[in-house]
Amino acid sequence: MSKAHVAIIGGGFAGIAAAKIFAAAPKKHDLRVTIIDRNNHHLFQPLLYQVATAGLTPANIAYPIRSVMRRFKQVTTLMGEVTGINPNARTITLDQGESISFDYLLIAAGATHSYFGHDAWASQAPGLKTVDDATEIRKRILLAFESAEREPNPHLRSAYMTFVIVGGGPTGVELAGAIAELALKSIAKDFRSIDPRDARIVLIEAGPRVLASFDPLLSDRAKLSLERLGVEILLNQRVTDIRNQTVICGDTRIRAVNVIWAAGVAASPLGKSVSSHCDSAGRVRVNPDLSVPEYSNIFVAGDLACVTRGNKNLNDIVPGVAPAAIQEGRHAAKNILRLLEKKTTRRFSYLDKGQLATIGKNAAIAQFGSLRVSGYFAWITWVGVHIFFLIDFRNRIMVMIDWFLAYVTFRKGARLITGTKTTIPKGRT
Amino acid sequence: MSKAHVAIIGGGFAGIAAAKIFAAAPKKHDLRVTIIDRNNHHLFQPLLYQVATAGLTPANIAYPIRSVMRRFKQVTTLMGEVTGINPNARTITLDQGESISFDYLLIAAGATHSYFGHDAWASQAPGLKTVDDATEIRKRILLAFESAEREPNPHLRSAYMTFVIVGGGPTGVELAGAIAELALKSIAKDFRSIDPRDARIVLIEAGPRVLASFDPLLSDRAKLSLERLGVEILLNQRVTDIRNQTVICGDTRIRAVNVIWAAGVAASPLGKSVSSHCDSAGRVRVNPDLSVPEYSNIFVAGDLACVTRGNKNLNDIVPGVAPAAIQEGRHAAKNILRLLEKKTTRRFSYLDKGQLATIGKNAAIAQFGSLRVSGYFAWITWVGVHIFFLIDFRNRIMVMIDWFLAYVTFRKGARLITGTKTTIPKGRT
Repeated sequence: MSKAHVAIIGGGFAGIAAAKIFAAAPKKHDLRVTIIDRNNHHLFQPLLYQVATAGLTPANIAYPIRSVMRRFKQVTTLMGEVTGINPNARTITLDQGESISFDYLLIAAGATHSYFGHDAWASQAPGLKTVDDATEIRKRILLAFESAEREPNPHLRSAYMTFVIVGGGPTGVELAGAIAELALKSIAKDFRSIDPRDARIVLIEAGPRVLASFDPLLSDRAKLSLERLGVEILLNQRVTDIRNQTVICGDTRIRAVNVIWAAGVAASPLGKSVSSHCDSAGRVRVNPDLSVPEYSNIFVAGDLACVTRGNKNLNDIVPGVAPAAIQEGRHAAKNILRLLEKKTTRRFSYLDKGQLATIGKNAAIAQFGSLRVSGYFAWITWVGVHIFFLIDFRNRIMVMIDWFLAYVTFRKGARLITGTKTTIPKGRT
Repeated sequence: MSKAHVAIIGGGFAGIAAAKIFAAAPKKHDLRVTIIDRNNHHLFQPLLYQVATAGLTPANIAYPIRSVMRRFKQVTTLMGEVTGINPNARTITLDQGESISFDYLLIAAGATHSYFGHDAWASQAPGLKTVDDATEIRKRILLAFESAEREPNPHLRSAYMTFVIVGGGPTGVELAGAIAELALKSIAKDFRSIDPRDARIVLIEAGPRVLASFDPLLSDRAKLSLERLGVEILLNQRVTDIRNQTVICGDTRIRAVNVIWAAGVAASPLGKSVSSHCDSAGRVRVNPDLSVPEYSNIFVAGDLACVTRGNKNLNDIVPGVAPAAIQEGRHAAKNILRLLEKKTTRRFSYLDKGQLATIGKNAAIAQFGSLRVSGYFAWITWVGVHIFFLIDFRNRIMVMIDWFLAYVTFRKGARLITGTKTTIPKGRT
């Protein structure tokens, strides 16, 4: 009998967690595993905003997937883009036309931000999902100050120095805080014609509060911390247009060269190729065991899965955070192992380990069960948790040093403008 | 009387060294200095090959120029491209049309590699001068192994796994050694279909030996070290064509997806806008005091300057290395200060501090005066010198740690494939 072949699409938190379960499975299973990702690296996405704001360098938070899998000889890593899935034929097609057959499939292809149908906004308001997104945003932020330094026209100069962040979730809040710290502290004394402390940072949120997944008390604390850094927060405001370097929301028009998009969820289109049970964001409404309704040998985990918490409330969805993805990936892998042993699968139940978000130096909020913490202790917890979960020994050391130096000096370690197009369009008067 | 204005074009070794001399000048000079660079960072070019081979991350060897100048309030940093110089009107034009007037000008705009008229080779055989060049080459090298892992055709697979480096100077030798170490050690166990140790690395040099600026004995040692790492060395061979993923030199045809160009010198075109006394590479044949023949208030330093060693032999040129650029930058700045004091300028004389080149772990060559060293001690000296001269405290620590971890584990810390075009053309059969 040939070995059973498990394919995993996506090397994010869910995919890597699942691969490790398979790698640690007893020999009797005699498995062969293939993990496929369009990038060669696993990305520690919770710290991506620090790359976008010049605090960390990409290699600090990304690690080659095949290095993670090095010791697991039964796991093959392929860098490639999955262009199609044929669930009946049990095959996957890759970008160069290769066909890969599978016995079991775990789809953990994730999600990206959504412009809610306004895809034309993408070029003016990039989002933050990949390493390239982060270096692009870093380039735009740093170039804005460089251009302002050269700009004699005061209107244009203030457009360069205005940063609008759309979306008050963790990414938006963390970006706003980090840009404020960059301007107020890291580069405050580096310019001669402009004062970076004049930068205007605006955070726009459609809902009534920032960090809505947290307790309202903590949302208020986070808002206060941001405002202390000079960030303007617009709540209950929906962006209606972004054009000509201007953000329009309702009657408010904000002239800004830099707009960063941190709102919405658009799941990978691969979900729809295996199931017609998708929610409005394209996430697959999986069975309680994380398999898709149509195929018992296909599972979905991570941001692509729409998982209910197990109570009767179908709207109580497991959040799209790293710990949930890891738990789902592991659970799906264990269920596939159970199927191989001809056992019945088990229901997934989410263990909520709490939530953390940081605003800036010494400022964060944390929520563990009924415990709510903010300020320095929440921040120290945030630092510890993030360093602990970074995937590689080397990355942990590097991030610790970068953070330690930044803490002491407030300087940012990775203020590089790179990328072939190193100019931004000259602002118009 | 208004302050005298000194403009410096280029934030490389020469430009930064000059700016520091001006910054430290006594107050009586009452100077105003502007340093202009097309990038926002000073780049420690001697270690750029390590970024290209995934050993170091760009932020480790690049540092914002305006951060270097932070404390020097009389120095303004501008990120911009100089598009023209009018030496008679004493003005510089920048890319957005701004005109900057100067009283004294130091041009330290450097040089790049030269395809000897075959500019069509550039896309097939990228060179290594900027951070973006390095991440592009890193991407191509890493993608080659990823593509080989997916490629069933053995001919194509070996084309992916063949690396040709053109030019046997320090950059070519260091690249060849580092790619060999990457394949033999760092990623040797990461693949399943291919064995990275099968990679073929070919170094092509037009002259009779590698590292021709060193003593012939040391050239031989370096050749031996490279061959021990499996690098094939072709001497006295000139590349006649590069097309269809094939390098042709004489009767030899080498099928290779990756060709890296490390030959030739083409000076910045700005030299020609201030002087008609340029050599064939476009370098300005400066006066003994480093001013240009036509204008006593315009100086040239670094790779753009063609400086004779001061003896009668006009072909005995100061080499295009970092220590020479630093000495020239300082000397030119001091001469400008002397002109401000109405003193006569002084002749430049080059203090040769020796040469170093590394092949790989524990393998380097060094030449100081009549002393010739190779092997472990030369390598340790190389490590020490390079860490010492890195511009920033943070960068020193980071590079030390990366190197220490690489020394112990042979793993490379920055194996990231980034950049928007993350695919290479599929090889043809």
